[in-house]
Amino acid sequence: MRTVPLEIDEDLGRDMHRWASDLFHYPRSLSGPGVTATFEYLDQLFDNLTIHRVATGTQAFDWTVPDEWTLRDAYIENSAGERIVDFKQHNLHVVGYSEPVDTYLTLEDLQKHLYSLPDQPDAIPYVTSYYKRRWGFCLTDRQRKALVNDTYHVVVDADLGPGHISYGEVIIPGTEKSEVMLSTYICHPSMANNELSGPAVTAALIRWLQSETRRHTYRITFVPETIGSIIYLSQHASHLKKHLRAGFVLTCIGDDRTYSLMPSRRGDTLADRIALGCLKGAGLSYDHYSFLERGSDERQYCSPLIDLPFVSIMRSMYGKYPEYHTSLDDLNVISPQGLAGGFALMQKCLKTLEAFHTYKAAIPCEPQLGKRGLYPDLSIFGSAAEARRLTNVLAYADGNLDLIDLANTIEDDVLAVAEIAENLCGHNLLVRV
Amino acid sequence: MRTVPLEIDEDLGRDMHRWASDLFHYPRSLSGPGVTATFEYLDQLFDNLTIHRVATGTQAFDWTVPDEWTLRDAYIENSAGERIVDFKQHNLHVVGYSEPVDTYLTLEDLQKHLYSLPDQPDAIPYVTSYYKRRWGFCLTDRQRKALVNDTYHVVVDADLGPGHISYGEVIIPGTEKSEVMLSTYICHPSMANNELSGPAVTAALIRWLQSETRRHTYRITFVPETIGSIIYLSQHASHLKKHLRAGFVLTCIGDDRTYSLMPSRRGDTLADRIALGCLKGAGLSYDHYSFLERGSDERQYCSPLIDLPFVSIMRSMYGKYPEYHTSLDDLNVISPQGLAGGFALMQKCLKTLEAFHTYKAAIPCEPQLGKRGLYPDLSIFGSAAEARRLTNVLAYADGNLDLIDLANTIEDDVLAVAEIAENLCGHNLLVRV
Amino acid sequence: MRTVPLEIDEDLGRDMHRWASDLFHYPRSLSGPGVTATFEYLDQLFDNLTIHRVATGTQAFDWTVPDEWTLRDAYIENSAGERIVDFKQHNLHVVGYSEPVDTYLTLEDLQKHLYSLPDQPDAIPYVTSYYKRRWGFCLTDRQRKALVNDTYHVVVDADLGPGHISYGEVIIPGTEKSEVMLSTYICHPSMANNELSGPAVTAALIRWLQSETRRHTYRITFVPETIGSIIYLSQHASHLKKHLRAGFVLTCIGDDRTYSLMPSRRGDTLADRIALGCLKGAGLSYDHYSFLERGSDERQYCSPLIDLPFVSIMRSMYGKYPEYHTSLDDLNVISPQGLAGGFALMQKCLKTLEAFHTYKAAIPCEPQLGKRGLYPDLSIFGSAAEARRLTNVLAYADGNLDLIDLANTIEDDVLAVAEIAENLCGHNLLVRV
Repeated sequence: MRTVPLEIDEDLGRDMHRWASDLFHYPRSLSGPGVTATFEYLDQLFDNLTIHRVATGTQAFDWTVPDEWTLRDAYIENSAGERIVDFKQHNLHVVGYSEPVDTYLTLEDLQKHLYSLPDQPDAIPYVTSYYKRRWGFCLTDRQRKALVNDTYHVVVDADLGPGHISYGEVIIPGTEKSEVMLSTYICHPSMANNELSGPAVTAALIRWLQSETRRHTYRITFVPETIGSIIYLSQHASHLKKHLRAGFVLTCIGDDRTYSLMPSRRGDTLADRIALGCLKGAGLSYDHYSFLERGSDERQYCSPLIDLPFVSIMRSMYGKYPEYHTSLDDLNVISPQGLAGGFALMQKCLKTLEAFHTYKAAIPCEPQLGKRGLYPDLSIFGSAAEARRLTNVLAYADGNLDLIDLANTIEDDVLAVAEIAENLCGHNLLVRV
Repeated sequence: MRTVPLEIDEDLGRDMHRWASDLFHYPRSLSGPGVTATFEYLDQLFDNLTIHRVATGTQAFDWTVPDEWTLRDAYIENSAGERIVDFKQHNLHVVGYSEPVDTYLTLEDLQKHLYSLPDQPDAIPYVTSYYKRRWGFCLTDRQRKALVNDTYHVVVDADLGPGHISYGEVIIPGTEKSEVMLSTYICHPSMANNELSGPAVTAALIRWLQSETRRHTYRITFVPETIGSIIYLSQHASHLKKHLRAGFVLTCIGDDRTYSLMPSRRGDTLADRIALGCLKGAGLSYDHYSFLERGSDERQYCSPLIDLPFVSIMRSMYGKYPEYHTSLDDLNVISPQGLAGGFALMQKCLKTLEAFHTYKAAIPCEPQLGKRGLYPDLSIFGSAAEARRLTNVLAYADGNLDLIDLANTIEDDVLAVAEIAENLCGHNLLVRV
Repeated sequence: MRTVPLEIDEDLGRDMHRWASDLFHYPRSLSGPGVTATFEYLDQLFDNLTIHRVATGTQAFDWTVPDEWTLRDAYIENSAGERIVDFKQHNLHVVGYSEPVDTYLTLEDLQKHLYSLPDQPDAIPYVTSYYKRRWGFCLTDRQRKALVNDTYHVVVDADLGPGHISYGEVIIPGTEKSEVMLSTYICHPSMANNELSGPAVTAALIRWLQSETRRHTYRITFVPETIGSIIYLSQHASHLKKHLRAGFVLTCIGDDRTYSLMPSRRGDTLADRIALGCLKGAGLSYDHYSFLERGSDERQYCSPLIDLPFVSIMRSMYGKYPEYHTSLDDLNVISPQGLAGGFALMQKCLKTLEAFHTYKAAIPCEPQLGKRGLYPDLSIFGSAAEARRLTNVLAYADGNLDLIDLANTIEDDVLAVAEIAENLCGHNLLVRV
């Protein structure tokens, strides 16, 4: 197998890390001002971001769009008037979608509303209750163990009622009707790998995609996870079934520990083949998960009656790294290098989709490459080794193997094979079929 | 892989072992009074046993039904008048289908008619000569070596002439036209695992099948091996080709050493898939043989022009355990535990056939399980682990994977998956296709 | 797996080695007197060799037939008048297709025209320049290092101009329209395994094929490598696409170190299956190469728009043994035993092609073999072991498995299975389909 390492753009990596840093403290949730502010920030990074608002109560397949949640403040105060747990210190301190409360409780009663992780005593857990009304606070187990008997003043100053859920969408028209989709989410507050790596890498990909004309139409969405992708599919599934060639969920794509692949449910769609071809061609080692370990919006995109060709290329996958879904998933978990690696791999996938053709020999038997300067004119053992990649493309371009199959068969990198094939087309030795 | 251990019914195991013990000394063969007595015993255990008699000389495909053999007595007496080999001591002492004889022989001449096993000096071998007229005696090699020069009186008091071969049949009508067949044999005298385990487990399965209404029609046969299944197929092959979903040869299903699977010739019929799914789902280790090692009536059921979906689920397979085809295959080889394990696995196969459907999601995307009480209403890492089996069924119920494929894909037990799927059908989240 | 060792005919091996020895010193190239002399020798060995001449300038697909090269003499003389490199000492001393020259050079200028192998100091390399005009000499690196500063007289006395390229062809008509092709080459001067083993084994196969009537038509070609097979295909490709069942490139088939298989591009053609079946059935260990390592005329026969079922069965493959493409590939590299092994394997492949049928049972269920003397009439454990090969053929002859699939499935040798199947056809228990 001949591999071509990814090219890592460290400047771009630093840009992406800065965007993630800027967005880190915005109090995102399914809805509310943190989401709005996030969209405003993204709108500065690239063109043509459209925000779609969906009203509370709207049906989306089996789901009903929930209330909008506008949180102004949330804290626990002890009898000395000290805010011992304060949402303004860390977004994760309040359970997502907590209903309003303003009351005084004993420690015993308060405990029923507290969440901490005994196994990770310094981590604030990420907890939400979108579809069941309750309120609660999250704190480190160390904080919790230090609580003393007291009367606590508990305040969640929030509106939770009819309003809207929003998602962002960018369409980059191509020269063909075929579409490629990127989907990332903007609903997790103050987590870096499992949230901001997604929008940051997606924003960089949009900037690159918008820099020149593309063959495919690119459809990019920034949705609240689960409800957002279900809403989007309730509006676009039949169009996507007709036009989508490949889709990618972008999440957990910013740390520097590994690469990961979440396949589609079917496991053999074009998206899977592109992802595998690019991982192999780049010579990357990676964790190949089973769809049984799915956890993000591929759950919707690949669901039986939707059945779109979606995969997820990640660095360390959700649920598989220790900081996941806690306050420890902070800006130190992701890195410019990590983000740039994720970007480079995704960019390679998109380049491969742009270059995706099936080639067929134009001439029976081997062509006389020597007269075209493509083959050594002196024959001595070993002299033709360099021409081997080119003759391999010619030997297998039978009109049946598409670019991925061809690269797999001749054990060469997909993009390198595409370049050789296009060169041979220029010599009228191959044709696209 | 999530497994569900078999439930072992020890009381039933003791019942089956008692039936085997009762039947052990009946002098069974291809035909004759031992077979008749066996049918009379079985007729007490369950309903609707029909005995079919087929006359000597009848053609069944390439075969001609042989003579009937009625053995009254068989022994070798020394000159002192002592019966040194006596059929009444052990059925195996006489070669099956020995022709009548009453003569006096020297030891040297007698030897030509004796069979023993030098490698197993305490075992009487099982020998038959159904289609070539001869007579002979089987004895332990130790007995044989102790024979002295003498004049021996040899008697086989038997009728061997035109008559009948019989087989038993039980039909348990189901609500659908599809059929499932069980075939066991009743022609081996005084062997336990390689004979009586089959009728005993089959009788228990019939009692269970007759206890309530079933979806499939069950067709159960008790035949003399080879000639019996060939006769049966000569009468029923075209009907079976149309209606049979799966068939099982029941033999060697009573000891406690291992489980074994003899696949069908094709290896991928529904019978194979059911058997493999149940073995895997029960977490059993087992010996997976090749059809090249076939040895019982699957030779007929799976033959090229018959080609039925038949497998054999066994404990220790014929030819693979040391006591096979000798007097050592006695009631100590089988056990209540061993028989109950064989029963439980076969019962699981039949339950799986009853539950065999293909399911399809009724709703695009994941349904909102929380509002149906099927999903936790608070989201914290790990809280949804218990709901995973259910979401796995939903995620893969695409209308293409049947029950076995679905269970294999989601790495769960077949019957557990069937139960979850039926529950989801009750919530209108899945439909049978 | 039951195997049948190849039968090695040592007398024939000695004949083939003598033919190779006789041909060793003929100065073969793409064209010229060495090729003509080779054809004259081969014409004595078998019947019906036809020589086809193709004129310089003729187009064959992408190629133009090059000039004819008639070499009379070629040497390097030092100022003392000693021939220090002399084509008459070894054919390999002159670069193939060297243009005429007669000049005096310093050592420094001479060096630009010399070829040697520093890693193999005693080997003269094999160098050609068919399509680019140049001249040159090959010598051992040891010779080269011994050259002193001097004025050297360099002579290549040759004609290089319009003329012909020739190839030989033998057609052996069969009783059916199906064809089998053997292709070997006659363009390498003075190399044994990578040249003369091919014509020698091919000649022996022709003699055997011509000894009696065959089912298939056999088409055997002796071509200059690459340009010769391209010319042949430009004349015969459409006929071959219609009629060819299997083809074999014969090269490197004379040493005694291993067997090798170069598969077809597709890897699953009848030629591949025959070759694999014969290698396995003979119990041979062998090197199974990838088509990515292709190097001889399979490059043309298997090219995408030609796509014929061609493989190459070899002993040590080109490029994989140390003497390859040097003067060390001499008559000591090949041996009577090695040639006879190559012949025997190829002969087995051709016999298998002649015996290639698909069989189907003629009778439902197992036939009663005992009444035909094909099965023991006494049943005791182990007594039927010998009949197992025969019952295996019967059990799997379902009309879908061809001879190779059948042999693979029942783990028996292909030709042994063919013999059993024909025997069963004689008993009316099988039919060819």
